[in-house]
Formats: sequence, C-alpha cells, structure tokens
Amino acid sequence: MSLPLPRHSIASASIEKRPPLEVGVIRGKETESTHQIHAVIARDDGSLVNWHGDPQRRTFPRSAVKSIQALSLLESGAADRFGFTPAELALACSSHAGTPLHVETARSMLDKAGFEPEALECGAHWPLDEGSARALSRATDDPSPLHNNCSGKHAGFLAVARHLGLDPAGYVAPDHPVQKRVTATLAEMCGVRLSAANRATDGCSIPTYAIPLASLATGFARIGTGASLSAARQAALERLRRGVADNPLLIAGPGRFDSRVTATCGPRVFLKSGAEGVLCAAIPEAGLGIALKAEDGALRASEVAMAWLLLELLPTPTEDQRALLNELHNPTLKNWRGSMVGFLATMVAAGR
Amino acid sequence: MSLPLPRHSIASASIEKRPPLEVGVIRGKETESTHQIHAVIARDDGSLVNWHGDPQRRTFPRSAVKSIQALSLLESGAADRFGFTPAELALACSSHAGTPLHVETARSMLDKAGFEPEALECGAHWPLDEGSARALSRATDDPSPLHNNCSGKHAGFLAVARHLGLDPAGYVAPDHPVQKRVTATLAEMCGVRLSAANRATDGCSIPTYAIPLASLATGFARIGTGASLSAARQAALERLRRGVADNPLLIAGPGRFDSRVTATCGPRVFLKSGAEGVLCAAIPEAGLGIALKAEDGALRASEVAMAWLLLELLPTPTEDQRALLNELHNPTLKNWRGSMVGFLATMVAAGR
Repeated sequence: MSLPLPRHSIASASIEKRPPLEVGVIRGKETESTHQIHAVIARDDGSLVNWHGDPQRRTFPRSAVKSIQALSLLESGAADRFGFTPAELALACSSHAGTPLHVETARSMLDKAGFEPEALECGAHWPLDEGSARALSRATDDPSPLHNNCSGKHAGFLAVARHLGLDPAGYVAPDHPVQKRVTATLAEMCGVRLSAANRATDGCSIPTYAIPLASLATGFARIGTGASLSAARQAALERLRRGVADNPLLIAGPGRFDSRVTATCGPRVFLKSGAEGVLCAAIPEAGLGIALKAEDGALRASEVAMAWLLLELLPTPTEDQRALLNELHNPTLKNWRGSMVGFLATMVAAGR
Repeated sequence: MSLPLPRHSIASASIEKRPPLEVGVIRGKETESTHQIHAVIARDDGSLVNWHGDPQRRTFPRSAVKSIQALSLLESGAADRFGFTPAELALACSSHAGTPLHVETARSMLDKAGFEPEALECGAHWPLDEGSARALSRATDDPSPLHNNCSGKHAGFLAVARHLGLDPAGYVAPDHPVQKRVTATLAEMCGVRLSAANRATDGCSIPTYAIPLASLATGFARIGTGASLSAARQAALERLRRGVADNPLLIAGPGRFDSRVTATCGPRVFLKSGAEGVLCAAIPEAGLGIALKAEDGALRASEVAMAWLLLELLPTPTEDQRALLNELHNPTLKNWRGSMVGFLATMVAAGR
C-alpha cells in the first residue's frame, strides 16, 4: 500500500513551536512541581488542528502504538486461523496490569497458537496491579513473561510467526520478518520512514522508533477514521477498536486511566498510553487524532492533559463521560491516611 | 537562638535565574525525555557558590529535612532519656525501605518510648523494598504504619512528646507543641520564616513548608559545618551525621541512592532525598550545602544531577567514591531481559 507522506512528515518543512501545555502538581497553595507537555491534534490527512509545544518532537511511541503493531495479527490471517476472541485482540493492543484475567487471556492466545509461555521474549516482571503482584508473590518466587504488561502483544507476534511458517525464535529482532511487517505497518499508518537511524529498543525488547508527534497524531486519526486505508485495514482496525471498547479492563487494568476512559467513553475514544509519558487517542466521530508526550516522561502529567483535551474535543460528551474526564483532569494527591493534600491540573496560559 | 537571615532569604532581593541543569534520558541515539533541575550550592553564611535554574524556587523539602526535624529528639533530651542508639537516630532521619531491619529499628524506638505502633500517625503503606513487600504479603494482608518509610521520624516525634509530658495524640498537627518545636528548628537552620502561608501537608501527614532552594542549601551547609549554631545543636548534628554515616542502610535501604552514597562516602557526604525530586547534601569538609529540585518532581533526575555535582565538589574523592558517583551519574536503562537500552546523564550546556 502507498500513502502520501503527511504534510508535517520528517521530510516536510518545520512548523513553529508554541508554548507547551503545563500540568501543575499543587500541594496546599503552592505549585510543587510542573510538567511540560507536547500535544498535537491532527486530522487523518495529516493537517494539524492545534498543537502545544513542539509538534515535531521526535517521540518513541513505546506501547502507545500497540494497536498498530497488532494489525499484522489480523492482516496476516493469524487471528482468524487461531480463533482469537475480541478480548484476546484487545490484549494484543494492551499494556496490561497482570491480573489473573490478563494472564489467562495471554495464556489462551499462546495455547491457541501452540506455544508455551517460555516462547515469549518480552522478559518477566511482577504484575503492575499491586494486589495481583502480592497474590502472586504468595504462590511463587518469580513472575513469568505472562505477567509482563506486553505479553498479549508478544503472544500476537508469536501467532503471526506460527501462521506464516516462520521460525519464531528471535521474533523481537528488528530484522525478523514479523518485526519487519510490524514496522512497515507503523510507517504506513504514520506516514514516516523508519530505519535503524531512528530505532531503539523498547522495554519488552522489540524495536521502537522515534516518530514526530504530529505523525503519531495523524496515525491515530487514521486508526479512528480509516481514511486512505485499504478496506482490509479498515476492517482490522474496527475489530481492534471494538475489541478494546467491549473489553476495557483488557487494555490496561482496574483503576488505570486507559481502562477507565475506555469503560466510560466506549467506542467514542480509542486511547493508549506508552512509557515515558506518551498518550495517544483517536476520536473517530470527530475525525481527530491526539498525541501527547510529557517532556520529562511523566505519565501522570500526560493523563491530566489528555483528560483536559478530551473534555474540549469530544463532541457533546454524556454526563458520565464529562464527570469522569473532569475527575481525571484533577486527580487528587492524598497522604497515606487518605486525606487530600493537593491535586494536579492543566495550567492554562492566559489568552488561550 | 537567633540567626541572621541569610542574604538570599525570602526577605532579600531577588537573584537572577540561570538555565537549569538538564538531565537527559537517552534511548538508542535519541533523547527520549529531559528533566530540568534547579540546583543551589551555598556556604553556611548564606552566600551562594553557584546555582542553576531558579535559586529561589520555593520548594517543599519533604523528607529531605528529616535530619533537621530530628534535632528536637536530641535537643529535648528524649534520645538520651530513652537510650536511642546511633542506628535509631539514623532511622529518625530516614525514608526507609521497610525491610525487617528498618521495621525492627522503628519498633525498638517505640518500645523504648512506651508506645504501640498504633500511636504512629503517618499512615501505612507497603515496604518500598520490593522483596520486603513480597515477603510481607505472604504473612499479612495489610502493612502497618511501621512499614511507612517515615516511621522512624514519627517514632522520634512520639518520643519527644512522651519526654516532654505532652499528649501525643495529634502530634502531626502544625499546632501541636512537637511540630511547633520542629518547625522553629527548621526556620532557624534555613534562616526563613515559616507560617500557615507557606504550609502544606506531607504524605505522612506532618506539615511541610515551601522554602527557597537557596535557604535549603544554606541549611544543609550548616548541618555539615555547624557554623553559627549553638554548641548543643552542633553536637546533636554531629551525632545524627555519625549515626547515618555508620548505618548507611538505615537512611534508605538496599540499592537506594542515599544509602549507596552514604556507604561509600561515609561522613564526607551527608545526603537526603525528598519526594517530588528534592535532594539535599552537605559536604562538611568543603563547607558546602547543596539543594536540588527537579521541576517535574522526578527523583531519578535529581539523583543523576547530585552525582554529577558531588563529582565536581567533593575534594579529592577516593577511587571508590569516584567510581560510585560516575555510576550514579550515568545509570543505565535496561529492558526486562536485562540488556542495556539507554542511560541517563546530565547534559552539560556549552561553555559551562
């Protein structure tokens, strides 16, 4: 497939920088800390609706693009061959919290594709969900790769390798055929060139590529609208979006930002966080994509800024949606006894 | 006691801002994230040796001033009355990791002063040390206030209350006589006025006060040199510094920055971190105090910047000291399989 490079691609002329969004951490009456957020709102044709900070900020999307990385799972035919359910497709797009639900869903994906957990090359870490981590620590001394927040994505990679008759070993390497497909899809969706020159290694050992924030926002607008994509890709994206919308806990976990927004906004917002303060979203009905990067890598700040932008950009939100986004835009700081001692908020510059 | 306000106190004229220190998070060949650090290096007379960023940045020191908060424990006579050991004095200055060593030391302090753990008003949280948290979760469903990283400090407050014949209930409140003493000592050490106007509540429920960074640095210089302090306070500070230097694990925990620096530098560096990216140090032999605040609250950045400053400011470090500080200045980012994928470093501006 061939896509025109969006107007703001790496190859294009520069766009002026604007002041970044600022998220403040307020304790008592003082601003204890501040975060600077680059934010881009784009349409699916690559045009920019608005931005804050540097719209060309080269950004490793990390886990924010897992849905794009999961496209190969559907487009190769592997998902249908192995009968993956909508919940399993959601887990392929997920940075999950390692609860039993997540672990069993990942295990089911591996079972269907004929793999043992040892085939996962993501590495192991304790569940992000503290209760699950404590429960697990009562049963075992070590977590397994199934508990890694990326195990669903990796189970998808393995399924692609099996379906295509490839040697699965080393499927995380940039030159493995699975990663080549995944990288090509990412380049198409965001309209960028990806190569060893802008490549690094993600926490789960797969490649991650530095991409201008505006290109990420464009890619997310396309996730939502399907514009300029093949019918097969449009259908694959719709299955992924529906799988996530119908299984909000699968995309992250109990109490987590991504899951809470998804549970309340359903298919109206398709949203995914990545490490180091990346947060991307599609608002399909508005034809918009949003990409945020906290300059300092703090996800707490990106979440606050995203809630603020969604309040502005989501057309006629329901009362529940507005209430949730207001809550997420002003999370409270509590001390260890549960009393409120401060809050976070986007600090809007005068004249905005 | 009466101290002159240092020249850079709140009441004094403003000092020009300079570019902050920048700490970069490097992944592959790209700068993935950056942190801005305000840093002040001061002498014990309040004069500034050097600074980066805003030397007057109003900063909640949080746990960084626990040693100053512990002075009341010695100056009231409570520490001697209850026979507190050097390790127990170190725990009073500590943000500890909740290992069994820390918990038993806190319990011993409470025992000696005649309190049950329930008297602690710091709230409970799981041990910061992950191994200790997992071990604890095998034995119990809930952590106790003893596991709170501030339990040693709070045990000290309770001992002061008992020694002075005060009702200990509510000892965390700003108007409790214990906190009034603690606040007065902090104001004296840093040469600042503290009141409800610049007060907020710390995570462990005690008051925390916004203080210009330069005043914090001056306070730390005085911790190291004792200049302009009474003989009793000098002796108390020396006991606290020696207790920490002789018990480096007590000030934080295994593998933690504060404990590693203390274990290797001993009495040459007295150093303490606080939440939201605060890190303060005294270098007694150089007569210097250092105070850092990451604008975004990221302790990982303050640690990198502190290691860099100590490499510069510690006179003739030993080989071990230099090796450790170099390591702490360039911590590696590893993926979940243990491979290095990046690092952090102070990004020095040209012409510095």
